Order: sequence, then C-alpha cells, then structure tokens
Amino acid sequence: MFDNLGESKVDIDRDHLKGYPEIVYGLHKTAGQIARVMQSLLDHDKPVLVTRVAKEKWEAIGADFPQADYQEAAQTITIGQCEKIPHGKMVILNAGTSDFPVSEEARVTAEWMGCQVTCIYDVGVAGIHRLLSYQEEIRQANVLVVVAGMEGALPSVVSGLVEAPVIAVPTSVGYGANLEGITTLLAMITSCSSGISVVNIDNGFGGAYQGALFLKQISQFVKERD
Amino acid sequence: MFDNLGESKVDIDRDHLKGYPEIVYGLHKTAGQIARVMQSLLDHDKPVLVTRVAKEKWEAIGADFPQADYQEAAQTITIGQCEKIPHGKMVILNAGTSDFPVSEEARVTAEWMGCQVTCIYDVGVAGIHRLLSYQEEIRQANVLVVVAGMEGALPSVVSGLVEAPVIAVPTSVGYGANLEGITTLLAMITSCSSGISVVNIDNGFGGAYQGALFLKQISQFVKERD
Amino acid sequence: MFDNLGESKVDIDRDHLKGYPEIVYGLHKTAGQIARVMQSLLDHDKPVLVTRVAKEKWEAIGADFPQADYQEAAQTITIGQCEKIPHGKMVILNAGTSDFPVSEEARVTAEWMGCQVTCIYDVGVAGIHRLLSYQEEIRQANVLVVVAGMEGALPSVVSGLVEAPVIAVPTSVGYGANLEGITTLLAMITSCSSGISVVNIDNGFGGAYQGALFLKQISQFVKERD
Amino acid sequence: MFDNLGESKVDIDRDHLKGYPEIVYGLHKTAGQIARVMQSLLDHDKPVLVTRVAKEKWEAIGADFPQADYQEAAQTITIGQCEKIPHGKMVILNAGTSDFPVSEEARVTAEWMGCQVTCIYDVGVAGIHRLLSYQEEIRQANVLVVVAGMEGALPSVVSGLVEAPVIAVPTSVGYGANLEGITTLLAMITSCSSGISVVNIDNGFGGAYQGALFLKQISQFVKERD
Amino acid sequence: MFDNLGESKVDIDRDHLKGYPEIVYGLHKTAGQIARVMQSLLDHDKPVLVTRVAKEKWEAIGADFPQADYQEAAQTITIGQCEKIPHGKMVILNAGTSDFPVSEEARVTAEWMGCQVTCIYDVGVAGIHRLLSYQEEIRQANVLVVVAGMEGALPSVVSGLVEAPVIAVPTSVGYGANLEGITTLLAMITSCSSGISVVNIDNGFGGAYQGALFLKQISQFVKERD
Amino acid sequence: MFDNLGESKVDIDRDHLKGYPEIVYGLHKTAGQIARVMQSLLDHDKPVLVTRVAKEKWEAIGADFPQADYQEAAQTITIGQCEKIPHGKMVILNAGTSDFPVSEEARVTAEWMGCQVTCIYDVGVAGIHRLLSYQEEIRQANVLVVVAGMEGALPSVVSGLVEAPVIAVPTSVGYGANLEGITTLLAMITSCSSGISVVNIDNGFGGAYQGALFLKQISQFVKERD
Amino acid sequence: MFDNLGESKVDIDRDHLKGYPEIVYGLHKTAGQIARVMQSLLDHDKPVLVTRVAKEKWEAIGADFPQADYQEAAQTITIGQCEKIPHGKMVILNAGTSDFPVSEEARVTAEWMGCQVTCIYDVGVAGIHRLLSYQEEIRQANVLVVVAGMEGALPSVVSGLVEAPVIAVPTSVGYGANLEGITTLLAMITSCSSGISVVNIDNGFGGAYQGALFLKQISQFVKERD
Amino acid sequence: MFDNLGESKVDIDRDHLKGYPEIVYGLHKTAGQIARVMQSLLDHDKPVLVTRVAKEKWEAIGADFPQADYQEAAQTITIGQCEKIPHGKMVILNAGTSDFPVSEEARVTAEWMGCQVTCIYDVGVAGIHRLLSYQEEIRQANVLVVVAGMEGALPSVVSGLVEAPVIAVPTSVGYGANLEGITTLLAMITSCSSGISVVNIDNGFGGAYQGALFLKQISQFVKERD
Repeated sequence: MFDNLGESKVDIDRDHLKGYPEIVYGLHKTAGQIARVMQSLLDHDKPVLVTRVAKEKWEAIGADFPQADYQEAAQTITIGQCEKIPHGKMVILNAGTSDFPVSEEARVTAEWMGCQVTCIYDVGVAGIHRLLSYQEEIRQANVLVVVAGMEGALPSVVSGLVEAPVIAVPTSVGYGANLEGITTLLAMITSCSSGISVVNIDNGFGGAYQGALFLKQISQFVKERD
Repeated sequence: MFDNLGESKVDIDRDHLKGYPEIVYGLHKTAGQIARVMQSLLDHDKPVLVTRVAKEKWEAIGADFPQADYQEAAQTITIGQCEKIPHGKMVILNAGTSDFPVSEEARVTAEWMGCQVTCIYDVGVAGIHRLLSYQEEIRQANVLVVVAGMEGALPSVVSGLVEAPVIAVPTSVGYGANLEGITTLLAMITSCSSGISVVNIDNGFGGAYQGALFLKQISQFVKERD
Repeated sequence: MFDNLGESKVDIDRDHLKGYPEIVYGLHKTAGQIARVMQSLLDHDKPVLVTRVAKEKWEAIGADFPQADYQEAAQTITIGQCEKIPHGKMVILNAGTSDFPVSEEARVTAEWMGCQVTCIYDVGVAGIHRLLSYQEEIRQANVLVVVAGMEGALPSVVSGLVEAPVIAVPTSVGYGANLEGITTLLAMITSCSSGISVVNIDNGFGGAYQGALFLKQISQFVKERD
Repeated sequence: MFDNLGESKVDIDRDHLKGYPEIVYGLHKTAGQIARVMQSLLDHDKPVLVTRVAKEKWEAIGADFPQADYQEAAQTITIGQCEKIPHGKMVILNAGTSDFPVSEEARVTAEWMGCQVTCIYDVGVAGIHRLLSYQEEIRQANVLVVVAGMEGALPSVVSGLVEAPVIAVPTSVGYGANLEGITTLLAMITSCSSGISVVNIDNGFGGAYQGALFLKQISQFVKERD
Repeated sequence: MFDNLGESKVDIDRDHLKGYPEIVYGLHKTAGQIARVMQSLLDHDKPVLVTRVAKEKWEAIGADFPQADYQEAAQTITIGQCEKIPHGKMVILNAGTSDFPVSEEARVTAEWMGCQVTCIYDVGVAGIHRLLSYQEEIRQANVLVVVAGMEGALPSVVSGLVEAPVIAVPTSVGYGANLEGITTLLAMITSCSSGISVVNIDNGFGGAYQGALFLKQISQFVKERD
Repeated sequence: MFDNLGESKVDIDRDHLKGYPEIVYGLHKTAGQIARVMQSLLDHDKPVLVTRVAKEKWEAIGADFPQADYQEAAQTITIGQCEKIPHGKMVILNAGTSDFPVSEEARVTAEWMGCQVTCIYDVGVAGIHRLLSYQEEIRQANVLVVVAGMEGALPSVVSGLVEAPVIAVPTSVGYGANLEGITTLLAMITSCSSGISVVNIDNGFGGAYQGALFLKQISQFVKERD
Repeated sequence: MFDNLGESKVDIDRDHLKGYPEIVYGLHKTAGQIARVMQSLLDHDKPVLVTRVAKEKWEAIGADFPQADYQEAAQTITIGQCEKIPHGKMVILNAGTSDFPVSEEARVTAEWMGCQVTCIYDVGVAGIHRLLSYQEEIRQANVLVVVAGMEGALPSVVSGLVEAPVIAVPTSVGYGANLEGITTLLAMITSCSSGISVVNIDNGFGGAYQGALFLKQISQFVKERD
Repeated sequence: MFDNLGESKVDIDRDHLKGYPEIVYGLHKTAGQIARVMQSLLDHDKPVLVTRVAKEKWEAIGADFPQADYQEAAQTITIGQCEKIPHGKMVILNAGTSDFPVSEEARVTAEWMGCQVTCIYDVGVAGIHRLLSYQEEIRQANVLVVVAGMEGALPSVVSGLVEAPVIAVPTSVGYGANLEGITTLLAMITSCSSGISVVNIDNGFGGAYQGALFLKQISQFVKERD
C-alpha cells in the first residue's frame, strides 16, 4: 500500500483512491529525500511532480534524472505527465507581475495533471480595462484559477463576469497591512461575489489541483455518456 | 439592466451573465426591503431565494407571498426553483449536530439551484468509523460540500477518500481558541490534503453555490455532447 | 477659548484654527450631554452637527431644538450649515445596500460642511458594469468618497478610473473572515491602486470631512485668485 | 494600450486616465525587469520614477541610464519629472530620525510629480515644543504628509493645528508592541482628530502621491478660472 | 491569615504585606458575594473599596451598609478610607469626555488610598493648546495618571513636559481600528517618550493604585527622615 | 540548593522536588554556557539532557564530553539516562515527514527519562487508512504523544480510537494560513475529541516530558503495590 | 453502532472504544434535543453527563428526569455515574473566586467519571503564601487540574512544586488585554515550567476528562497486577 | 534649544524639562550618526548613554571616544553619569538566564541615571523557592524592575510580596505561542496582582528609566525637607 522509506511512507496506491499519484512537496525536504521519493515513484511507473524546489536542490539532483524537466519560475520538477483530460478548459489569471511565480506553479501543475490551460497575466483591477478586454476568453473557461496579492480584488470582479466557478489563490505580494498575504486571503474569503472558493496563500499548486479535479469530473461524465 | 429601488439596484439581468438570478442576502435588510426585492424579482419572472431570514422577518412578510416556502432551520425563503441540473451529484456532509443550520442552508441552496443532493450529517472525525461507514456514498459524489466547526478536520479526511473536489465550509461552532470560526477557517485553508477549497465561516450558501456551478458545467458539457 | 461644561470643554474657537466649528460625536454621550453641548454651540452662534445619534436620543431632545433636523438613516442632527464651498465636487459611491447608513453619514456631513455632493449607490465590483455605466459622472469629481464593506475592492477599481483623489471608507458589512471590517480596512490600505487614503471603519463622517477640507482648499485658492 | 513585455503589461496610456504615467514599484522586480520597464517608458517619452530600488540593483543598471538620478536615502530612481504643479504647497513632517528614508521617498515622489514641497523633520510629540516652533510654516500648507512610527501620534497633533487635510504615513519604526508598524497604522486610523486619512506602512510614495493629486486638482481649477 | 467564605478566601492580613487591605473587584461577583466580602472586611476593621459595581448591585446591598458611599460615575463603593499620604501630589488627566468614568475610578481609588489628587479632564491632543494651558499644574505633580482612548497619544505628549513618571491608562473609547482599546494599549506601550508605563484597558483603579504606591514610598521616606 | 554559575543558578536539587534533574534548554545559550551547565550537572552525578543544540554548538563542545551522545535529527545531547520506568508504554505518532525532528526530540526525551517508546511516523489524516492499519499498536499505549503540523487533525482522530490520554504537539510545518503553527495549536486546542491536552509549538520535549510523568505515576503506584 | 435521532447520531458503543459513554455538550442544543439524547443514553443503560446546561433548560426538562441531578454552579446534569476508579488522586486548584464555575464543571466531571477529587480554591499567585500552605496536599496528587484566568500563572508555580503532571485550564476571567482568555491560554502554553499541558478556555470538563483518563490507566495497571 | 545635525535635532535642553539629558537609541542609527550625536552631547557637557549598540558599531567608533565604556551584555555605551540619587533603592529581578541582556540594559541605565541598584537574577516561578529565599532583599526596594519572558508570571508573584511599585519588563524569550513576547506583554498587563505597570517588550532601558524617575522624586522630596 505504501513504500516505506524510513521517515516517509510513499503512498503508491494513491491514484486508485484519488485519481492522481502522490505529488511531492519539496520545501522542507533535502535534495536527497526528494531524489529518493522521486525514484520510488519512478520505480512504480508513476509520473512525477515535485513543487517548491529551489534551484540549488534541482542542481544537486538533476543529473540523476535526465528525463526530468525543471521549471525555474514555478520551482517545479516534472517527469512525464498524467493522462490528458480531453474536455473542459482552465483559465489562469493573475493581477500583477509579482504574482508570476505562483501563477506558473498553477500552470505547470494543471498541465501535468492533463488540463488544457490558458494564461492571462497582469490584469489587476487598478486598470480594469485590461481585464475587460479579455472578457470573451474568460467566459469560455469551465473553471478559473485567479491569482492575486495585495487587496485580492481580482476574483470578485472576475466572478461577476462568468458562469464558471472561480478558485482564488491569494499571494503574499504586498507589504505592511498586507500581513504577508493574510489580508489578501481574508479579503477573498469575504468577497461580495458568489461562486468563489479559496486556497492557501501562494498555493498555486492547490488552486490548479482543485481546478483539475473539476475538469476531470466533466471528462469522466462525458466519457461515460459517449 | 437593473431595477432601481432607491438604496438598491436589483440586478435583473444577472442570470444572463452568471447563469442564475440574483440571490438576496437578508441579514442586514429590513423585512420591507426584502419584500420589495422579492416582488421585483417576481415581477421579472425570476425564481427567488432569500438567505439569512430570521423567523420574525418571515412572519412579517410571509402572508404577502402565499407561494413562498420558509425553511426554518436553514433560515431561507424560496419561491419556485431554477432549472434542474440533470447530471452530477452533490454530497453534503457535516461534522456534528451544531453544524445543522449551516448544512441546511447549503442543502436548500443547492436544491433550489437544481442540484441532486445527498446529506450525511454528524460524521465528525472524533468517531472516524461513522464516516468510514459512508465511504461508498461519498465516493459517488461529483462534488462534496463539507461543513465542520471546531478544528475543522473533516474536509481533510474526506478529501483523502474521494476523487471529486471538496468545498469546505467552516462553521463558528466552538468556543475559546475556536475564535468564532477563524481557527476553523485557517485550519481548513492549511489542510494537508489536496483538492480542498474554502468559503467563508457559516457560509453554507456559498459552498453550495460553488458546488452547483460545478455541476452545471458538467451538465452543459453533457448537453452539448448529446 | 473653551466653554467649560464640567466633564467637557466645548472648543468654541475651533473654527478659527480648523476652519470648522466643533462637531459632536454622540455615541458615548447621553441625551442630556448632547443637548448641553448643542446649546453651548448655539449660544455662540455656531452651526451644529451631531453624529451617531440613535433615534431614542433624538426623540428625547428634539422638542427642545425645533430648528434642528434629524436624518434617521445617517443618525445625524443638524442645525443650520456652514458656508457653501463654491467650487469643486464630491462624489460619494457605495458598494451595496448595506453600506447605505455610512454613506448617508458622509453625505449629510459633506453637505453641512458646504460641499456640492453627488451620490452613486450600490455599484459594487461583483457587477462591474453598474460602476462602468457611471464612469463619466465619476470622472467629474474633484474628490471621491468610496464606501464599501466585505473585501473592500471598490476604491481600487474607482481609483484606476479617475484623476482625483479617493478617500476610502471601510464598513463593517460582512461576517466571518470580514472581522467586523478589519479585513476591509486592511485590504483598502494595501490596495494595488495609487491615489487612495483610508479612514476608520464605518467612519462616513471622517471620509466626508477629509474630502470637504480638500474642496475648501480649492475654493480658498480660487477666491484668492479672483 | 499597453506595452506587453511578457510577464508585465506596461500601461502606456495611464497618464490619459490617471494624469500621471505608470510608476514602477521596484521591490519584487529584478534589475533586468526594472531596466526593461524603464526603457519601455522612455521609448514612449514618459518621465520615470522607480521606488524601492536597493543600491545593488541601481548599481547593476545605472550605467545604462546615464540620464537617471538615484536618491539613496529614498531608494528611488528618477528620469525627468512631470509638469510643475503651479499652485499649492505640500509640507512633509516626520517624527524622528528613523523616519527619514520613508519621508525622503515622499519628498522625491512629490517633487517628481511637480509639487512644491517643504520638509520639517524630527518634530515628534515627545518634545512638543519643537513642533510648535514650526506652527506658522505648517499652517501655510495646502496639504500635509505626516510620517511617524511608534505610537503614531504626530498626525493627531498636527491636524489639530491646521485647516488643510493631513495624510498620515505610518512607519515600521519601533519594536515589540509596535508590531512592525501595525500598531502605528491602527492608531492613526483611530485618531481623535478629524481631517486625517492614512496610507500603508512605510508607504511614503503613496502619501505623497495622494497629496500631489490634491494639489493638482487645485491647479487645474485655478487654470480653468484664469 | 484569611477569612474563608467558601468560594473566596478574604486576605485579612494583606495590609501587613502590601500596605493596603484587599480591594474587592465587583464585576464578576453577585451582590450577595460582594456584601459578604464587605462584611468580612468591616468585621476586621478594614476600610472598604469595591470597584466595578453596577448601580443595580449597589441598590441591592446599599441599605445594609448605611455607612457606605456609592460613586456612580466611577462605579465604586467606599467605606472609610486609608491613612492620608501626607506628601506628594498625583495629577489625573484625561483626553476626552468619554474617558470620564475610567478617570473617576482612578480618582476615587487614589483618594481612598490617601492621595492628594488634582484632575484635569478633556485635554486631548487634537486641541493641544488646552493641554499646554495647564502646563504649570502638570509640572507640579510627583506622579501622573494619564487616561486616554483612541490613538492614546496623550501620555506621550504629557511625558515630554514633566520630570515625574507617567502611568498611562488606555481606555476602550473608540471603534473600528481601535479594537476595543487594544490599539490604544499597544500604542501607549510603544510610545516614543521615556518615563511611561502602562496598565490594562479601562483599569483606572490599577493606574491610581500604582501611583499611590509611589506617593506612599515618598511619604515613608520623608517620615523616616523627620 | 542551586549551583550559582553567575547568570544561571543550576537547580541541583530539582530531582527531589520534580522527580527529574534539570534539563538544559540550549537554544539561547552559547556553547560555553551549555558546557558549564553540563559540567555542573555531571559534578553532581546527574544524567544530562540538553535540547535545541545546533550541530555547530555540539561540534564546539563534543570533544570535552566523550561520554556524551548527540542525536542530530532531534538536536539533543544526552549523557547517561534516568532510571527505567518499568511499566506503561508511550506511542509517538506523527503526521508527515516534516514533523520528524520534533518527533525525534520527543522520542529522545522520553527514552532518556526511562520510558518504553514506540514510534509510528507519517500517518497523517489525508490518507486515513495508513493510521487505521496501526490501530492495534495505538490501542496498547498508556499515553500517546501525537505530533502534527498544518491543520493539526491527527490528535482528534487518534483520540477517538483509544482509551489512553493524548498529548498533542503542534508543529510549525505549513505556510500561509498556518501562521507558523499558531493555527495548528489553536485547532488542537479546539478539537472536537475529548482526552486531548496540548503543549507549545514544536515542543516535542514538552509533550514527551508530560507523557513520562504519567508513566512514572503508574510505575510508582505499581511499585507501592508490589 | 449509533442511535440515529435525525440531526444527531448518539454513539452508543463509545464506551467500548473510549472507556466512557458519550458525554453531551449542551450549549448549542435545545432543551428538547438534550432530553432526546439523554433518553437514548438511558435506554441503553448508560450513565449520563450533560455539560453547559443553563438553568432555564434544566427547568424545562428536569421534571421528565426525576432521577437526574443538576449542579447549578457547574451547569451540569448527571444521572448515575461511571465505575469508581479505585486508585490515584486528582487535585483541582483554582486561582480566584471567578474561576469557580469552570472548576466546578471539572469537579463534577471527574467525580462522575469515578475519580477521587480534592478541591483547593482561590489560591492565585498574587498571594503566594496561600498556595504554599497547601503544598503537602498538592504533592499527594497523581494528577492536578489547575484552573486560572488573567495571566494564568498558577500552573507554572504548581508544576514546579510537584512530580505529577499538571493539566492547565485557562478561563476567560479578566478584561482588556486578557482577550477573553486567549492571553491566558497562550501564557499557559508558553509556560517556563515542564510538565504542563493545556486544554481550551473555560473547558473544565476537558481538563478533568484528561485527568480521569490518566487515573484510569493507573487503576487498570494496578488491577492487572493484582 | 536643539542642535540641528541635519536628519536629527539633538535636544540639548531636555534635562531642563525632563531632568535628564537626551538618551540615544542606537538600533536604527549608523555608527557615524551615533558618533555625531555623542559628540554633540559631549560638546554641551552632557553625560552620554547610548542603547542598543551592536558590538560592531562600538568597534567602529570606540577609538574616537577613549573616555567611553561599552557594556557588551547590555549593548550600551556610557560616558560619565548623571548625578547620584542619594535616597531610595531599586531592585532588578529576572526570571531566567535568557533574560540577562535585557536586565543588564536596565541595570546600566539605572546606574547611569544615578540609582542604587541590586540585581537578583534567575529566580523564575518554576522554582518558586529560589525567589522566596530573597524575600527580605526584595521587600527593601523602593521600586522593583522585574524582567521576564515566556508566560511573564514573575511580576505577579513579586508584587504580592512587597509594598513598593513593580515595573514589569516583558522579554521576547520563548517561542511558538509566546509570539515574540506579545503573550508575555499581554499577560503582564492582565496580571491578577495590583501595583504593576508595564513597558515595551525587551525594553530594559524603559523599565529602569521609569524606576529612576520614581527614585528621583523621592530624593527631591527629601532634599526639599532637609
């Protein structure tokens, strides 16, 4: 049921229960620990996604995994990818340039999970006309992942323009009263718009994962009908 | 575009943009204000949902709306309902008896929006075998709305058992270190499980609304394929 | 220099220093205390503004001040008004119906201080097209007072549309993660838009007062030029 | 409408809408990103202001912009400046030596935006006679930007001495109960004086920007009258 | 050593250790409990001070203690008083009318403990000239108790004008960002002035008690010298 | 009664009062201070436990204590150990790999104090079947120390499965809404399960110490009976 | 496995798993709901404990349960009690008179669970000699439940005097900086004494429950040996 | 009135108003700024105290001030000292070894201000007998400065043993729930003992300064009598 590596128990059967293999959170792990878990997943023929991998860690282990890709902005490692999700579209938006790394973590995650993704970046509410110029693209999404820092207003505006559900990802971009993203998080939670749910601060992975689960439900439904 | 009632602008065209008519948040409104907005929606042939209506307010206006139903536990008024969503299932779970009102707000909202809903109540993690005995029902859901107070652990456990996305609704049930639900909210946001997104404290409406948007996306996809 | 009423010292000369007579904050004062301060101001030929006066207090003292007006929504008492400010326009916006009382406190204050005021209510960001339909009116303001609760996003959007300064007034409208307006306040403070400054939660008076000071500076400048 | 640099969309037309070109927030940007945005603005004949530029970043790009100035205390880069605002005066005050960098960011911003500025530094309330000795200069301001850390009392005292509006800038100067400026911010927001509005912690730029918008309104009014 | 009343142990010998008899905190006690403790103190020939006694509680027990006085604004009961402190003066200041009850609790406490007290009320920093007009009286104090709500700036200014120590009493007067006095407390703690120490919110009793201990030390010293 | 080392007073008699010798908290002490306290304990024939010793500090003093062991993961130094506790079993569980260091501090502490310990690691609630597969081992514990970060749900589930008391140790593992373990701590405190008490964040030592005191009470009782 | 009462599932088998029957938390339940759960427990021959029952609720249902006792100070209902725990002693201490209700909830709970309990009340640290006069009784305890409000210092002092574990119960007694017991809770968690673990604010029940589990472990051990 | 050094205004006349010359807070100042202020004070024949001077800063300027002393633990520089305060004694206590630097800052400050000081260190409440063994020395103080971290209980116990006022200095010693001293601060503020007032976290200087003001009042009184 799991591959016991001492401190860690790699959950080899997770895809049977959850639909996706275990994804490795790299932040608190050493390069060696990451490599061992990656190898365990490869030994069981799983595609691999590792998040929050600083460049130095990647450089320490990259040579041992020639088949791996490292996405520097997203701070992710991927090997292979999960089965394509044939139906449904995800749109990822962000509010400003500083939200780029979190947005890229979301994009890499969603694509690795098999989603079809469109990214629209730097369309924050301080210049609302930028967002409105993309209204058509936005309305074609089946699920939206909206990444923003500071006062976190973008999901409220986006949600008012679309029928699809919005998953809001607060970022820690800001200072002072931003409280390292806590204000952004709470503001998104207390949004005046319906149709928004929220994940943790800077959790681009989590926003995309939730979105991918939705799209997968759509595709399974369509598959059963076909 | 909107019906101007003085202090309020009833958004008559919202269903064209959002797929659903405007829903009335009754908490800060007087009985008279609620009645006027309800009448405006009826005049434009919209189904009506009003949330957070205390019993006294309902008693003040109920006689004027003989076609209306009042759900006391959920504190909601409904007139008619939206088009049935033919595909997909929502399961609503809660952790304990005290979460009942918030869960019922979720159930009424989801059913009014056209969803097919199953409720499994009082299955909190302190007696984990109760939850596990419903494992099969839970795995058949296409989206789950999980309502819990106190330490808010139920969504983490549920999410580990299913492929579908989980929308977590923290409640203000608890005392002391619970901080009127803030601890519950933050705990759900920082869950160790993937596939969870979160709405505001006691926001059963918001959790169900997000879930209904998902099911509607599925049904629209299926419809286009048929 | 001040009229000594025992517990209070009525600052009779404040208009020489500040340009406006002392304004009475009624919340923590008894009806009797309010009446005594009002009488002291009248005895010195000052126009009177009292804020945060609940209806019962007004009913206890109204008969003694037949020349006074009571604005129920704003919870204010006025007698007379300050000199008209001949130049410059203030626009007051709010996000939703529940922000009405705070907005009215702002309007009464600004008008009593001599400002020319336009109100545009219920134009929150969840339905952004409502706001955009008033873009022309908004751009004619010399100062804007923007009142909003929940995630407090309206000032960020408005500020992006105008050249004039925006004074943001957070309200305590919301629940749960709104933290009785603290989230709204912090979100406005950490706005991504330039040209916004913020006053206390529900402080419609303070927002309007600051705006009136600006308009008065304009008018004094013009007067000196003429 | 905007110059698309990949991750960023430089808002070239902002001065048409806002009256001022886009100002670059340098903190989270790399030296390279800053240089590219600066070049884009120069290519469109805009004056340039970059804030929060550490000395090392300036040293990395300074040679490519021989026409640029770097203000080390303020941590700003400027190239050219906006049109002079012919009427109205801004006074910038601070409470202590440690508030100097934030105050200088305010001064550089205001001067770049065309304002006429006077600075009065180190006049905190612990030695109130220092402030009172500048009373005449203070009363000649049309808008005041008051920078203070710790308990943030200076704006309350200043506002009681003048007719003009006060924009308060809390700083993170202090320790312990200061909570990195949060206490200062909240204290300024809950000031007992009327006529104060507040911007984010250490946001000297934001305070000056708001003040410059006011002075510009005055000048536009006078211009239209002349 | 103590008089055992069941739930309470009245510390009869406290004056031997602390210099003052036990003082009764009435807030959470029933009228009956208060009466029993008062009787126990009288039985042991102690002077009595009870704080935080709402008027209804006083009315329930007043008849049984004909020798007692009730100070309504201060919400205190006194019977007799402690030995006069022959040397040293306490000055109590407050910032505004709403601080009156807390200031009166301080005054009653100090006088009951034997202090010579002068009160200067409603001299908050928004009108700094009021405070400065009392500069001479203030400089004659050997200890000052300074009561203020909102941003709590008064102790900082007072402390800069005197040689004597300042004990600051924050009050819960204010709203919104005042956080029921927490902001006031933290602002006083992080004051830029030296020579200030702080007691709990609305704790007029505690501020006066600390001040009386100081004056008593002075008098004991003088007595030993005489 | 204590060995006076200048800044420190080593409590040599503590084992008479508390049953265990003084344990050294190494975090804020220099290598030299740690060595002096260790020597003082050795001079009085006490077993030694030092916690929170970074590897560099150990390397600076290890050579002087050849009889000492350093546990790198746990960041502890031990010399000798206390008397075996003959009866009762402690089980230490943790939720994930990142909780390993805190768990190891608990294990080293408990074993040094004489406990019989079993460790079951990486059994967090996101994959509940891992925990359930150890149900038998868990039910044999007389006291459980449960270490978890993020939402801190593991103690709630464990406590529902056993008769023995659970001591919960929150860790700072997590980010964003985790608030460096504060959310975890508060969630554990507000658990829906009975039979849980909580120690400080990352305080593996404290959890184990409390557990060892329990087991020692059992053993003393049995000893008295035998 | 459970008795399904609609909103609630009464866990009839809990004593097999946990060693004690389900205990009813009465706060958020109506009198009717409480009565139904009590009847269900009686029908299955369980002893009954209901906590947090206001007097009015008891008066509404007391007549239907003539065999029940109501403890007014503790706000508890009991019917019968669990098997006596033959070995081990619990001592409950509190700091002041206002902690009485929480302490009584602890005492009633512990006695109903079968413990032998001694109570020592009103021995707070402001008069440390009261506590020290009970040193002998305290050292005979096998587990201590220490109830305190305000700064919560009592457990730290008690823990330094005994070999047995201390379970600390913070109360909401205090005001202002006490933050309704949050300060007390955090202070107890960050105690300088080893051997303390903490439960929720005002959770006398939880402290006693944890203590009773300990004593039961002792007794089971002794029983197995006899 | 002040010596204008550009960014700073050295308050040369402060001793006339406050009784003591300006004291330099070194933390945010550069070595050069500190040296210039020191020189300015020396030029006006003032004794010098600089606090929060890291060793590197001292090493950069020490050679220029051969008459200066540097106290490394206290992180202070002194040149000369103020007039001796002939009467009254200060006792400084601390709770543990980690509180040593803050306590030494207090001691250096008090001695420089002319006080007679006794230090009693490492007498925290976890081993209450250590404190009680110093009871006689403590009762001879005319003012006590009590330094403690973690739960901050020491001032509550000390205050219960003495007639003199206690000034409590919270330190940031602790972790997790200690919140970098905020918990300690709030716990001291909400102490159950009367006769305590509190200064900022780690503010040994501030505690001693307040204590010195008290002793100086005593001495002035005695002097006037002699």
